Amino acid sequence: MKKILIVGGVAGGATAAARLRRLSEEDEIILFERDEYISFANCGLPYYIGDVIKDRNALFVQTAEAMSKRFNLDIRVFNEVIGINPKAKEVAVRRVKTGEVYVESFDALILSPGAKPIAPAIPGIKEANNVYTLRNIPDTDKIKAAVEGRPARAVVVGGGFIGVEMAENLRDLGIDVTLVEKLPQILKPLDFEMAQMLHREMKAHGVHLILGDGVDHFENKGRKIVLESGVALESDLTILAIGVAPENALAKDAGFRCGPRGHIVTTDTYEVIDDITGQPVSDIYAIGDAIEVTDFVDGTKTAIPLAGPANRQGRTVADRIHGIPFKNAGVQGTSVAKVFDKTFAATGNNAVQLKAKGLPFVEIHAHRGNHAGYYPNSSVISMKLLYDPETLKILGAQAVGKEGTEKRIDVIATVMRLGGTVFDLQELELSYAPPYSAAKDPVNILGYIAQNIQSGEYKTVQWHEIDAIIAAGGTLLDVRRPDEYAGGHVPGSVNIELDTLRDNPAGLPADKAAPLYVTCQVGLRGYLAAQILKTLGYKDIYNLVGGYNTYAAGHYTV
Amino acid sequence: MKKILIVGGVAGGATAAARLRRLSEEDEIILFERDEYISFANCGLPYYIGDVIKDRNALFVQTAEAMSKRFNLDIRVFNEVIGINPKAKEVAVRRVKTGEVYVESFDALILSPGAKPIAPAIPGIKEANNVYTLRNIPDTDKIKAAVEGRPARAVVVGGGFIGVEMAENLRDLGIDVTLVEKLPQILKPLDFEMAQMLHREMKAHGVHLILGDGVDHFENKGRKIVLESGVALESDLTILAIGVAPENALAKDAGFRCGPRGHIVTTDTYEVIDDITGQPVSDIYAIGDAIEVTDFVDGTKTAIPLAGPANRQGRTVADRIHGIPFKNAGVQGTSVAKVFDKTFAATGNNAVQLKAKGLPFVEIHAHRGNHAGYYPNSSVISMKLLYDPETLKILGAQAVGKEGTEKRIDVIATVMRLGGTVFDLQELELSYAPPYSAAKDPVNILGYIAQNIQSGEYKTVQWHEIDAIIAAGGTLLDVRRPDEYAGGHVPGSVNIELDTLRDNPAGLPADKAAPLYVTCQVGLRGYLAAQILKTLGYKDIYNLVGGYNTYAAGHYTV
Repeated sequence: MKKILIVGGVAGGATAAARLRRLSEEDEIILFERDEYISFANCGLPYYIGDVIKDRNALFVQTAEAMSKRFNLDIRVFNEVIGINPKAKEVAVRRVKTGEVYVESFDALILSPGAKPIAPAIPGIKEANNVYTLRNIPDTDKIKAAVEGRPARAVVVGGGFIGVEMAENLRDLGIDVTLVEKLPQILKPLDFEMAQMLHREMKAHGVHLILGDGVDHFENKGRKIVLESGVALESDLTILAIGVAPENALAKDAGFRCGPRGHIVTTDTYEVIDDITGQPVSDIYAIGDAIEVTDFVDGTKTAIPLAGPANRQGRTVADRIHGIPFKNAGVQGTSVAKVFDKTFAATGNNAVQLKAKGLPFVEIHAHRGNHAGYYPNSSVISMKLLYDPETLKILGAQAVGKEGTEKRIDVIATVMRLGGTVFDLQELELSYAPPYSAAKDPVNILGYIAQNIQSGEYKTVQWHEIDAIIAAGGTLLDVRRPDEYAGGHVPGSVNIELDTLRDNPAGLPADKAAPLYVTCQVGLRGYLAAQILKTLGYKDIYNLVGGYNTYAAGHYTV
Repeated sequence: MKKILIVGGVAGGATAAARLRRLSEEDEIILFERDEYISFANCGLPYYIGDVIKDRNALFVQTAEAMSKRFNLDIRVFNEVIGINPKAKEVAVRRVKTGEVYVESFDALILSPGAKPIAPAIPGIKEANNVYTLRNIPDTDKIKAAVEGRPARAVVVGGGFIGVEMAENLRDLGIDVTLVEKLPQILKPLDFEMAQMLHREMKAHGVHLILGDGVDHFENKGRKIVLESGVALESDLTILAIGVAPENALAKDAGFRCGPRGHIVTTDTYEVIDDITGQPVSDIYAIGDAIEVTDFVDGTKTAIPLAGPANRQGRTVADRIHGIPFKNAGVQGTSVAKVFDKTFAATGNNAVQLKAKGLPFVEIHAHRGNHAGYYPNSSVISMKLLYDPETLKILGAQAVGKEGTEKRIDVIATVMRLGGTVFDLQELELSYAPPYSAAKDPVNILGYIAQNIQSGEYKTVQWHEIDAIIAAGGTLLDVRRPDEYAGGHVPGSVNIELDTLRDNPAGLPADKAAPLYVTCQVGLRGYLAAQILKTLGYKDIYNLVGGYNTYAAGHYTV
């Protein structure tokens, strides 16, 4: 019989407790939570505020009482672990309501403290009475009360998951919402041109987007927000969602190593590390948003605060305590969010991350229907895939669309997890009937494009490169129909329709050795054009990746 | 420059033609189609009849004219290839409209003749004027015209994909529909208890289901259908959809080998086989619904008439003609269909197939929400997974549910394709946000269940075994709440609520060495109960797989 203590009762901590009990009826399991609630639906909080989830009780996945009973746990809410003695294997616990402190011994200790919203000391923030961060139920209750006061204008600071979800939910309540983001884009898992599709979506739903700007200070008890650019916003309700920081105080005080951004460092089996000796501390583990994890793509250290990995770590660490082996291959960071009528999903690294790491990659785009175009309500899923040109391993993928968007990323995430290559994507046998997909699923299409590129059928140019090429005198042939071209095209491009190309029409450049660039709506006809132009004697042909769709997304102005 | 002939212009044939052109501008490519239309949306035909697809033109994915122009093809509709001389490398072609016959030589020949509906000589069928099969556009036009005559009653014979889709579409037009199927279930890719969920769905939408019965004869010009059971049905419109047979006449006449059910036999690279020598016939290939394929699961020969594999074979055979290598790993048969408000999808082998082949397998069920239960409109996806107890390789999976159902099968199909095991399912990092999934996706859950079983945490009993066990004196504990139990339970089961089990309540069997069976709604609480009962001294505990949900589905009566 072991005595196992768990610090933190949400996601990883709650999962660990339940799994520990399933693995042993005998062990004593104590779960400490300094707040009132364990195991609440933290991912659902914005939707409760937005009245999408109507019933507050729905947020409580498990109550402390029910979970205690079901799993025979000693759950202590309003009990905060304030110190760890790793040598003596003891923790000090403070009863939050009385201030009384007591000691508990342990055979194993699991830290699952999570992460807290960053709230910097912006001038005027202390005097503000309408600025909120969102992490837990009490935060939610406060924001819900503020929303019930019928604010006319809200400002959301930060364009990450919580910021975007809050902007959507407040907007859907009829509030005039402005989202302010320091970066030139929202939702960092996406590369810029993919995020642009969501900028368009947010604008289409009436959210004012201010990108590349941050809060300088608050005035008038928070009613006025002055940005770094000097722009001033009026706000009845402000949500500060500029990121989270790991709850590492307990670990740091105990002498456990933390990473460059403060995350608790662990071994592959989640033991914490003694910061002085660099050795694992036996029987003390850390999991969840507070820890540093291994990036599945390249094995570097990173931090990925997501519920899925936290839950998995909770189960895994319980298994580990019971001697069940596991292999920690790292975290891909598969993520998804609803942005009004669209969905974005991503997995692995994006181009920005790969560039920063100096990793070589090929980048392809596809825009394909979620299901057969002849079946009603088909919608386009825009996909981006990044792969290693040597190993052909998939490094990351992103998608923006409607129905079926995130599940295409799930399929690619699965190929990545199993070590597959882009060539495997062609071979996948995915469900097809007209209401669900096409005989060639968008994921298959990405594989076909990669095969075409790798076999040298065509070379590629990216949306962010083509303007400079045209400015320097390069020729871009747009092979769409004239009506498509008239509806929008790359400035300086020349329109010659695909089906006329075999006749070697006037307007084709005379110099057949010079680079020739081709494009269409999504890239397919550009590829066909490249094949025809080769037989006309052109030697150096490049197809614009993702066609005008990707180009137009990249050049959208907020 | 090669001269390449293709026989058949739908799916595989059309794909091969387009791919061949992309690989070579110079080759002469002639596509023969004996009917009027190439590359039509054959999977969409039932939906056009049902007025879901409004525009007939939407069915024409590519017209012969547009495709000829785009890909510089010589497409000859109303031209039927009637003979092949493999030695001379020539085919004889008949102009359907004039009867004139001519000869074309070839360097390579691709046969993509497809499959045709089976229409046996049932007594009275010749005199019937209201019995239709559905394969192509002319068939569709005829049925559409019949539907526009406002039939009151329709009978669909056959519960495969086309039969079920036709039944749904006719029913949604307000017609009184009866579906007659010879087997005790519709949709053979599903095992019985999974198909039962769709029997329920069809009945809920007013379709009369007659299972385990077939047509004996037609009377009164088809207005009366007498079944083998003697039951007589009135019908204004009858769809015969009892299966398809490969179009193998051309191949047989040319001396190419065909399999036991008439499918054209090919090498792994799709060359046909000389039936006398057993040797591959060089430069003559066959693809699509007409051929025998390799079952991905166990390498046996099978036939899987689906659009996805046909298209893939079309591309692959074009690559093969151009010397691009590929590995043929076989076909999984991933399939999906809409059945009113539900979706079913499946991949790999089902339990019936595995039993018939004598392959060992473990069978697990899960019933989980498609997304977080606290987010609106969550619906249950019922999943079944079959895996090899030795290698842990996944042998097949089935799912029935609403939104997101088929995409879970896609993820599992992807794991299978990449050679993963059930243990890989736990580790998959899939998209999670409340509108899309749960932190533990249903696919992860299947992996967890498999891990629990493989690590010996509990043993299992199946829905179709438990009645006999209880009849023989076995004890089944149902650990749900009394209100759940009252709403429906396995006859003879004993209700003791999970959360009271640790108190060793009265009613538990005295003999702790005897087998003890447990169940709940879906299997999770049964698992928890098993863990607790072990500590109470019970030695031999079995959890009912899939809980009462699966049991109730299995015992549904049409």
